[in-house]
Amino acid sequence: MTKGRLEAFSDGVIAIIITIMVLELRVPEGSELVDLTAGRLHVKFLCYVLSFIYLGIYWNNHHHMLHSMRRVTGGILWANMHLLFWLSLVPFATGWMGEHFAPWPTASYGVVLLAAAIAYYILQSIILRVEGPDSRLARAVGKDFKGKVSPILYAVAIPVAFVNTWISAALFVTVALIWLVPDRRIERVLFEEDHK
Amino acid sequence: MTKGRLEAFSDGVIAIIITIMVLELRVPEGSELVDLTAGRLHVKFLCYVLSFIYLGIYWNNHHHMLHSMRRVTGGILWANMHLLFWLSLVPFATGWMGEHFAPWPTASYGVVLLAAAIAYYILQSIILRVEGPDSRLARAVGKDFKGKVSPILYAVAIPVAFVNTWISAALFVTVALIWLVPDRRIERVLFEEDHK
Amino acid sequence: MTKGRLEAFSDGVIAIIITIMVLELRVPEGSELVDLTAGRLHVKFLCYVLSFIYLGIYWNNHHHMLHSMRRVTGGILWANMHLLFWLSLVPFATGWMGEHFAPWPTASYGVVLLAAAIAYYILQSIILRVEGPDSRLARAVGKDFKGKVSPILYAVAIPVAFVNTWISAALFVTVALIWLVPDRRIERVLFEEDHK
Amino acid sequence: MTKGRLEAFSDGVIAIIITIMVLELRVPEGSELVDLTAGRLHVKFLCYVLSFIYLGIYWNNHHHMLHSMRRVTGGILWANMHLLFWLSLVPFATGWMGEHFAPWPTASYGVVLLAAAIAYYILQSIILRVEGPDSRLARAVGKDFKGKVSPILYAVAIPVAFVNTWISAALFVTVALIWLVPDRRIERVLFEEDHK
Repeated sequence: MTKGRLEAFSDGVIAIIITIMVLELRVPEGSELVDLTAGRLHVKFLCYVLSFIYLGIYWNNHHHMLHSMRRVTGGILWANMHLLFWLSLVPFATGWMGEHFAPWPTASYGVVLLAAAIAYYILQSIILRVEGPDSRLARAVGKDFKGKVSPILYAVAIPVAFVNTWISAALFVTVALIWLVPDRRIERVLFEEDHK
Repeated sequence: MTKGRLEAFSDGVIAIIITIMVLELRVPEGSELVDLTAGRLHVKFLCYVLSFIYLGIYWNNHHHMLHSMRRVTGGILWANMHLLFWLSLVPFATGWMGEHFAPWPTASYGVVLLAAAIAYYILQSIILRVEGPDSRLARAVGKDFKGKVSPILYAVAIPVAFVNTWISAALFVTVALIWLVPDRRIERVLFEEDHK
Repeated sequence: MTKGRLEAFSDGVIAIIITIMVLELRVPEGSELVDLTAGRLHVKFLCYVLSFIYLGIYWNNHHHMLHSMRRVTGGILWANMHLLFWLSLVPFATGWMGEHFAPWPTASYGVVLLAAAIAYYILQSIILRVEGPDSRLARAVGKDFKGKVSPILYAVAIPVAFVNTWISAALFVTVALIWLVPDRRIERVLFEEDHK
Repeated sequence: MTKGRLEAFSDGVIAIIITIMVLELRVPEGSELVDLTAGRLHVKFLCYVLSFIYLGIYWNNHHHMLHSMRRVTGGILWANMHLLFWLSLVPFATGWMGEHFAPWPTASYGVVLLAAAIAYYILQSIILRVEGPDSRLARAVGKDFKGKVSPILYAVAIPVAFVNTWISAALFVTVALIWLVPDRRIERVLFEEDHK
């Protein structure tokens, strides 16, 4: 019950964040193809795609993590709130970077992603402490290569934004690809558990 | 559990998309009947009705498809995200077409619908592969006449928009009607299964 | 399952509609008490309260109606969508009436409420037909005095708005009070059923 | 069932309120760090953080209260609606205080918090009356020190805003901290109950 409500609330917030971002894609003034690019809509669109994928990754991982969790504590509730807080700033950072693909907006996008990654890590650590080292989740997480490399890449992308915003953007895309590709490892562990 | 959360998340996103669209219907400046038409509100209203029906159809079909699904994989989660992505662009395309009933906005509406239809087809194919050819869903989908004819009509509507936007609009309405009418076939198969 | 998802989707849409309305209460320009009334915020606030209560009533009744429903058909899904469509227009009508407490906006508020009431009546009729005359819901609905008197009062309020908007507003408030007061009848029937 | 839907609806509304607030953080015009502070974005950000925490506390407490509730009545439904109504005004009050950290906006923030606290108290009282003095919830609530002290601090913060807005703000932060810290008491009672 408690766990179900935590999932439902998180789903609701992530679903709203993901959909609110699209409001930044304002309807253009004119009716020609050129009006789409005039308002930098193509840049905003690409930023929207990237953030949509990021939020999809977060939802996906959050889903798997909570699926294998068995007990909800007050600490977990607040660590989850903390994660949702940083995710709620993604539309703002996406909007700013879409409007101005410049050092500060790009760095701020990195800061929000970094903070969200740290919040996710904290949440995962608290759940792991509650579940114990022999738990299903502990085995599924394993060495957590992706969880460790992502914040490092974000942390690199932030100062790099002041040198070249494109390299920062490439780093953001890289992290997204790292997560998108081999999610199957956790899935396999869980699947095997479910069918033992 | 997993399936329930996938449904809940999709429901949330579709519910928000459908409701966010109404924000395009801005409160008119004046207080007379003429103020409704001055801001092209009647055109926007009709576009809103059409998109509301489309999203209703998607929700309805999505609901039936997931109802008969038994296993959730990472591929299904991402194919579902991909579908939600294109649906999230419906308010934008609706807003642009409502503001300017001109070739490019109308064509862009068609592009979004076409992409959503393809995303739906991909999701359905992945689920069918997981479920197998003898599954309940495979029988319910059958020859999938509607799923095949819709993208063709969208693909026709896109170039036609540059000739006559009204014909494009008529094609969009036609597809909506095709889906609205005889949804009972799938329902009957599922109902018979449930009561066997 | 199917019923649960219909409820969840309807809850989502109503929750979003109810919360989106508050966006019409724009933050005032200045920081004095007089800035609240300058932007007609007190009128908008009262309209918001009224619409919030209306949507609460709809959610409440919808909740009770679906609670006693046993089978979901395609007709029910679409009749429900139709109801949600009209409810989604409540924020628009509320916003217009709040901005201009004049004949046309007030009448349009009545039109939206009337259409929603008719949509609710259609949904109830379809459910009752599926459930049968001896069903739990049929007994709970009974003679449905409130369901019959509300559309009449809305229908009266629409032309009256062109004579005196205050009388229309009084009629809207009256209907809200009628529903707010003795909801316990249905509840009692359901409660007795549940504990038989 | 009924309880689940009440929770789902409340979750939906709170999730939307919490996320809508972030829309007040408008994307700045320029692309420099100074553009963040020019639009008073740092003040708005701090107000957002505070309100996010408040809504998190409400969700958390609401969650615990409903978890130990066993029966839903019409009175509970409406008392819950009343609470959601005041919570829905939090984004407005947050936005005004963020825009103008002046006496009236700060006092209005206090008024909304006070009204929400009273609404929460009413809801709790109604649930306690339904559940009875020996119920699980009654034991968990106990003397309800925090529930009693919060409205007093809000009531003090309102007039104080006209003397010094910073003292008011400090009081708001104090209440948030009171709730954040030792939520574990209720949790422990519930946990022990669950495992007896």
